[in-house]
Amino acid sequence: MARWQPNSSQRLALAALELFEERGYENTTVIDIAERAGLTKSTFFRHFQDKREVLFGDDAMARTLADAIVAAPATAAPLEAVAHALEAVGRQIFTPERREFSARRRAVIAAHPELQEREALKGLGLTASMTDALTRRGIPDLTSCVAAQLGALALKIVYERWSDTANGDGFSEAARRALDEVQAASQAMPRG
Amino acid sequence: MARWQPNSSQRLALAALELFEERGYENTTVIDIAERAGLTKSTFFRHFQDKREVLFGDDAMARTLADAIVAAPATAAPLEAVAHALEAVGRQIFTPERREFSARRRAVIAAHPELQEREALKGLGLTASMTDALTRRGIPDLTSCVAAQLGALALKIVYERWSDTANGDGFSEAARRALDEVQAASQAMPRG
Repeated sequence: MARWQPNSSQRLALAALELFEERGYENTTVIDIAERAGLTKSTFFRHFQDKREVLFGDDAMARTLADAIVAAPATAAPLEAVAHALEAVGRQIFTPERREFSARRRAVIAAHPELQEREALKGLGLTASMTDALTRRGIPDLTSCVAAQLGALALKIVYERWSDTANGDGFSEAARRALDEVQAASQAMPRG
Repeated sequence: MARWQPNSSQRLALAALELFEERGYENTTVIDIAERAGLTKSTFFRHFQDKREVLFGDDAMARTLADAIVAAPATAAPLEAVAHALEAVGRQIFTPERREFSARRRAVIAAHPELQEREALKGLGLTASMTDALTRRGIPDLTSCVAAQLGALALKIVYERWSDTANGDGFSEAARRALDEVQAASQAMPRG
């Protein structure tokens, strides 16, 4: 497996992760992060609007999800298009060499309310991105919302399972299984 | 209809809403908010951990949702328990005299990313609260997650419809209809 060569944005994220682990989010400045990454403060702000943003990248995930939904076969039902999207995230973002970083990142976010807030907002952005892409396939608004919501739940479940390093599955396979489980649970839900 | 008599926490929220409307979130301090409400800064911090929190109350909504789910009839299916929860929110929180405040609050949040972030985190808290209450009914974890997620989507839809003052429906009736629609969309979702 080729060694992962991080770009500037990824070097800043890795530096920030190390510093947040070592001394906490509050006690780390943007200058500290830039210095650790061997970059300047102005480079930091070219990539990220503020300190909270550094662990949340460049919206690559929202784009990857949306592009895969739009590109899914014309005959694919809404949740099948969502399955394509989760698999694309596994191929393009949550690759095996990113697993350790993801596990550490998840632990740091869980320890810092400021980062949980940003993550919550990013999560809504992912759901909105999937919803929008589904409507562009001609799927009615409410069906698109529901499919995106179920997809977001599957994404959360698979991310937790996959970033747990004790578990050896690839992201894409685990994603399809999680989506199958979520779909089965939603279909087996009478109300009366 | 009896005139609404706000308590300290509600007076602070109303003062904050006015100030955010008049001069923006960034240009309003906690002291400004306390002064407008005729209260002190220390009273503010007894009610709210920070300035972002002032429009997000005291977690009454999370408690109301959870209590109603736990109290729903033993025979109620998961989404029926969720319907009880949304109706309880309509009876106890989103009463007709709160509609105008809610519409203004929604507009202010939409205009300020800091408030959107807090709202996103609070939204996850509501979903978690419903999930937890459903599992306390003995419902399996994944089914509880899915039912709570569908309930959260219905809550978002009904809140948007209800706080739009052009629409005359009560919250509880609108909530049950939104949940019916969300459930129908989720059941009518093949994947293959």
